[in-house]
Amino acid sequence: MDTDRITPVVLCGGSGTRLWPRSRAAAPKPFLRLVGERTLFEATLARCADDAGFAPPIVVAGRAHLGLVEEQLPEGGECRIVVEPEGRNTAAAIALAALLLPEDAVMLVCPSDHHIADDGAFREAAAKAAALAREGWLVAFGIEPDRPETGYGYIRRGEAIGGFPGGFRVERFVEKPDRARAEAFLAEGGHSWNGGIFAFRAGTYLDELARHRPAIAGAVRAAVAGGREDGRIFHPDAADFGRIVPESVDYAVMENTDRAAMVPAAMGWSDIGTWYAVRDARERDAAGNSVRGAADLLDCRDVLVDSDGPRVSVVGLSDVIVVVDGDEVLVTSASGG
Amino acid sequence: MDTDRITPVVLCGGSGTRLWPRSRAAAPKPFLRLVGERTLFEATLARCADDAGFAPPIVVAGRAHLGLVEEQLPEGGECRIVVEPEGRNTAAAIALAALLLPEDAVMLVCPSDHHIADDGAFREAAAKAAALAREGWLVAFGIEPDRPETGYGYIRRGEAIGGFPGGFRVERFVEKPDRARAEAFLAEGGHSWNGGIFAFRAGTYLDELARHRPAIAGAVRAAVAGGREDGRIFHPDAADFGRIVPESVDYAVMENTDRAAMVPAAMGWSDIGTWYAVRDARERDAAGNSVRGAADLLDCRDVLVDSDGPRVSVVGLSDVIVVVDGDEVLVTSASGG
Repeated sequence: MDTDRITPVVLCGGSGTRLWPRSRAAAPKPFLRLVGERTLFEATLARCADDAGFAPPIVVAGRAHLGLVEEQLPEGGECRIVVEPEGRNTAAAIALAALLLPEDAVMLVCPSDHHIADDGAFREAAAKAAALAREGWLVAFGIEPDRPETGYGYIRRGEAIGGFPGGFRVERFVEKPDRARAEAFLAEGGHSWNGGIFAFRAGTYLDELARHRPAIAGAVRAAVAGGREDGRIFHPDAADFGRIVPESVDYAVMENTDRAAMVPAAMGWSDIGTWYAVRDARERDAAGNSVRGAADLLDCRDVLVDSDGPRVSVVGLSDVIVVVDGDEVLVTSASGG
Repeated sequence: MDTDRITPVVLCGGSGTRLWPRSRAAAPKPFLRLVGERTLFEATLARCADDAGFAPPIVVAGRAHLGLVEEQLPEGGECRIVVEPEGRNTAAAIALAALLLPEDAVMLVCPSDHHIADDGAFREAAAKAAALAREGWLVAFGIEPDRPETGYGYIRRGEAIGGFPGGFRVERFVEKPDRARAEAFLAEGGHSWNGGIFAFRAGTYLDELARHRPAIAGAVRAAVAGGREDGRIFHPDAADFGRIVPESVDYAVMENTDRAAMVPAAMGWSDIGTWYAVRDARERDAAGNSVRGAADLLDCRDVLVDSDGPRVSVVGLSDVIVVVDGDEVLVTSASGG
């Protein structure tokens, strides 16, 4: 397997319900056309489909969503799929992929349910992160914050790493702050959002996981050893995998390793965690309105309508989101944040 | 026929579209359960169903709505139905009913699409109006205004009529005013809304119509002479009726007669002309919210939800109306007036 190129590891676990009613257990967020013509999952793959820089991806997904994954994979594109018997959070999911790769392969871990407006900036940051990863760093993307968001963890930038322009040590990871602290971070500078995008060599990751979470590392190794290939699909052993205590890569590895680095990335990132984030990521008209499906807007500003059937008429409202999905209608204020 | 008791003449013409999407051509406003358990039409009939004071009603309706009328008439209640071949406004509709009554019968003309909260106050005003009508007055109900409404015509009260407590001459009818004038009316007092409820003897009305609009009077007379009975249903001749130039009873008769009187009525009247009027007429909870159908409200104030199917979830909004009707969803501000 190719170790010069970066191997995208696309994580499709989780089933966010914050974008209810469109996002439900049977149709989770990565597989929805929330922004633009592609689903977030399709866009994530396309972003890493530059053959010069990227090797074929590994997709890690739950059994329930295997059908959606196969449906949305690009025709004829090479790909490996790892089916998690059940969700065990990101530390284990990433380890599954790492064990299917040569030690020297550089993995780029990408959540499949985020929106990135500027693919070029993403690739630039990926190249910088990969260069650091090849030297044994565990690299987080640091998203440039534009508001005092309390819903994300933050990364405090440390000193620059010599020989790697745009690469920095991580001084520390900071848990979701309260409002006052988030405002201080923004005023002070030097703090980025932790977007959950990471680069490291497969071997480095597995070593650090074994050092800081030997139980997880051992169980994943057993699950892979007892697993079974089925064409491009790999099924880890369910019993071994089921023993794992779920933990995120942040807690299990990134916050503990002394090789944590970060690359700042200003790439129009959004975790599309709320309907107003969806609105802000979509194309909007001069009045700030954005419509999908049949809709009539009269005297409206900054309104998002997304209907899969019924016609929605909105009159005289600002900052309101209306989502119709089958037998559910959501009408919510969009002035939160 | 009974001339001591008041004969309700219930007008079901028109097909208001202001309560779209619930009110549509096939299901117009009178026949909808907009407030309480009864349709506005059913409530109008029930309000005049006190046998001591009221004779059986005459319902005037368009052909398209005959099915709805018959469906919603109370079981076993006596009633006469006049089917208008086509809508020719209220002057002609009332004349149809008048010609089916003895000259001395007192008619109480009631629109079928208004809400009246206080039936007792309505009946009291009706008794006062009937007493005046028996003496040859043409009597309008004057609704006590509680806001500078620009959507209604006004009645300026004249001098008291001796021997009839609560009865006044009409000084003049005033067309829908602009905002400044409506505010002046409210500040000044002596102005009521014209609610379209009238009482007069059948003979008086026909005489005044013949005096001021002889063409309408003649055409209605011909339409009735050439009409046909079918049980309790009367069909006027379509050709004669079709010749009529549509005009309201206000323009054709009330503004021209020198026998115009009025009785003030404070009875919780609403023409239910808008969704916010519907909201205000319905029962509301402590937060001012009112729900029909499946709905979840979180952190809402003064929100109306009315769904005939899908579940509606509303989050963090004030003064918003959500109506779901089959394949139409309406979301509108309720802060207008």
